[in-house]
Amino acid sequence: MNTEQTDKIKISDKLQTQNFLKSRDDDINKQLNATSSIDLTAVYEFLGMRTSQAWISAATNNLPLIIQDHANCEKKAAGTAMNLIFRYEFAYDLQCKLAQLIREEMLHYEQVLNIMKERGQDWMHLGAGRYAKGMLTHKRTFEPAAMIDVLIIGAFIEARSCERFAALSEVIDDPRLAKYYRYLLKSESRHFEDYLALAQSLSDECIDERVAFFKVVESDLISTPDKELRFHSGIPI
Amino acid sequence: MNTEQTDKIKISDKLQTQNFLKSRDDDINKQLNATSSIDLTAVYEFLGMRTSQAWISAATNNLPLIIQDHANCEKKAAGTAMNLIFRYEFAYDLQCKLAQLIREEMLHYEQVLNIMKERGQDWMHLGAGRYAKGMLTHKRTFEPAAMIDVLIIGAFIEARSCERFAALSEVIDDPRLAKYYRYLLKSESRHFEDYLALAQSLSDECIDERVAFFKVVESDLISTPDKELRFHSGIPI
Repeated sequence: MNTEQTDKIKISDKLQTQNFLKSRDDDINKQLNATSSIDLTAVYEFLGMRTSQAWISAATNNLPLIIQDHANCEKKAAGTAMNLIFRYEFAYDLQCKLAQLIREEMLHYEQVLNIMKERGQDWMHLGAGRYAKGMLTHKRTFEPAAMIDVLIIGAFIEARSCERFAALSEVIDDPRLAKYYRYLLKSESRHFEDYLALAQSLSDECIDERVAFFKVVESDLISTPDKELRFHSGIPI
Repeated sequence: MNTEQTDKIKISDKLQTQNFLKSRDDDINKQLNATSSIDLTAVYEFLGMRTSQAWISAATNNLPLIIQDHANCEKKAAGTAMNLIFRYEFAYDLQCKLAQLIREEMLHYEQVLNIMKERGQDWMHLGAGRYAKGMLTHKRTFEPAAMIDVLIIGAFIEARSCERFAALSEVIDDPRLAKYYRYLLKSESRHFEDYLALAQSLSDECIDERVAFFKVVESDLISTPDKELRFHSGIPI
């Protein structure tokens, strides 16, 4: 699609955007007041290690790239949940939970798109980093093990997102973005627990060993040199 | 996934479901009060013809199948919008609109799942009918024509859904379901207009001719004998 065609889409006019931004800010303020002290202990314990200072510095110096990749992550999280909804149609509670997750990820996606618009940042194509792929390569190939692994991986992605939003919110210069990242902590930390509980509920065996396995894989992806900077990338080189 | 595994999912417990149903009913009541007289003139004018009495009778006599297919339709509408989101990443307003559509379709999906639960209706696998496929077979194969056709087809699916919800709400025995179908009219009629406006905004030429073409195709699918009963099927045989 060319720029001219893109420019022609006038459905969401200025007024709609302003209303959206106002209601988004109201919503964020409400949630921040209610959850000003989100306890991230469970997130930190679940993850094998904290993000390096090197990544935080690189991300802070390349915020547009990180914001773009965040938009991609929200979209991909919704897409993955949508795939699960189509593949496992007989699990009622899984279906409801995934539908709720998709709604939340899509709302966040819209919010990030609006932040990009506010900051005057054009959409740019950004290929996926190694992170999700690096975990999915270990996904077992038989059911329900494959689904359980996807859900455990989902839990790690959400937990890591949460940990990085918290870290970034403390150091970035843009106060509205910092506030938005703090607002995300609540849902992201809930998503991590949802994914984990779903994985356990679908397994006949305790999933602890599998979680421990992916904890090592995830920590490795986060703590080893990585040539591409992304929201979930390793140590910048 | 086997029944035992399904039963083990206890994330959405009884209390959560009750709260959801209460808030859903509140929401429906609020919307019904605000929109007790939705004007469907634009929907009827857009569609080539009204649904036959034969389909309405067959659907009323096979409500569980229609409810199941409705659930499938909400999921598929969200899935199609998700595909578009991934394919056309550079169109900002299209992205926002699609994200909103996905959120609404997913909310409806959850609501239909809860209606099935309330009615004690188990999920059953139901293959797709001929309807969407029958239109998609005419989709042009080059861009942006392909996307424009998908959006026009989306408009017909939403408009037909709207017309059938209105028809069913007047004759079915279940008053809560009838109320829910009336509640859906507002969003479904808006979705039809959204899809159409998006299609026009992405096209350099007037889309009227293409709309007229699909109007004939859609009318044919609705008004000719169809061996499978579905939410969007033709004349039952």
